[in-house]
Amino acid sequence: MTAAEARERAAAMLADGGIVLTSAEQEAIEVADFGLGDLERWGLQIVVYVNTERVCAKELVMFPGQACPEHRHPPVEGELGKEETFRVRRGLVRLHIGGDEIALRPGDQHTIPPDTLHWFQAGEDGAIVSEFSTRSRDDLDVFTDPRVVR
Amino acid sequence: MTAAEARERAAAMLADGGIVLTSAEQEAIEVADFGLGDLERWGLQIVVYVNTERVCAKELVMFPGQACPEHRHPPVEGELGKEETFRVRRGLVRLHIGGDEIALRPGDQHTIPPDTLHWFQAGEDGAIVSEFSTRSRDDLDVFTDPRVVR
Repeated sequence: MTAAEARERAAAMLADGGIVLTSAEQEAIEVADFGLGDLERWGLQIVVYVNTERVCAKELVMFPGQACPEHRHPPVEGELGKEETFRVRRGLVRLHIGGDEIALRPGDQHTIPPDTLHWFQAGEDGAIVSEFSTRSRDDLDVFTDPRVVR
Repeated sequence: MTAAEARERAAAMLADGGIVLTSAEQEAIEVADFGLGDLERWGLQIVVYVNTERVCAKELVMFPGQACPEHRHPPVEGELGKEETFRVRRGLVRLHIGGDEIALRPGDQHTIPPDTLHWFQAGEDGAIVSEFSTRSRDDLDVFTDPRVVR
């Protein structure tokens, strides 16, 4: 699956899920493969609604079985790391955090404290997840797998 | 319209809009009449997903023609006031800010800087608006109309 194919598939899933994007937003969907070159397994499709100094909001689209590798959001320049709340809109997401696995279905959400290792995987129908957080600085995320490039 | 009726109507609009809430969230929908006792004209129905020290996310449900009175979010204890982004999911919202009127339709959004006077009104079909912001402290909002109680 190429990035362009992933983008198109994510746009279709969002439309199916009743989430309206402008055409500019559809074209700007970010496809993250985490440098692992295996989008079927490791990847996220991301719509960034807003990302200011203080607030960030995104939709994350995940294909069936697709996962985001384990990482944490460290403190930056004396500020706490990113705090994020995942709210599942469609599908199932298994969130792995602190040794626990939390199954999140539509209407379920979980807040991940700063600097806390976590990873998550979509169920067999894929998923749409709203993420509400402090400022997002993806390049500063710390991944457990040293092969990951963000 | 009583608060209970408004809550039920808002829950139905959210369900129609494909936004899934838990039953606890449906029962907890906040109905704000701003102390004006005229919900048909002045009011908001609010689902608070998260409101921590750093991040807040809500859905705002507005009935046809319903409006939120003019207000601003002042600085608090040396911190900047609340910064909020409105993203319209369903319907039409006319956002009045700095002498401008901005019409927002599904997929459109606008970020309101801290301490900036604004008010907004839903179009004839009502509206659903996602709000992404810094911490929400409704009791500290400053309304232009002195009759408003929040």
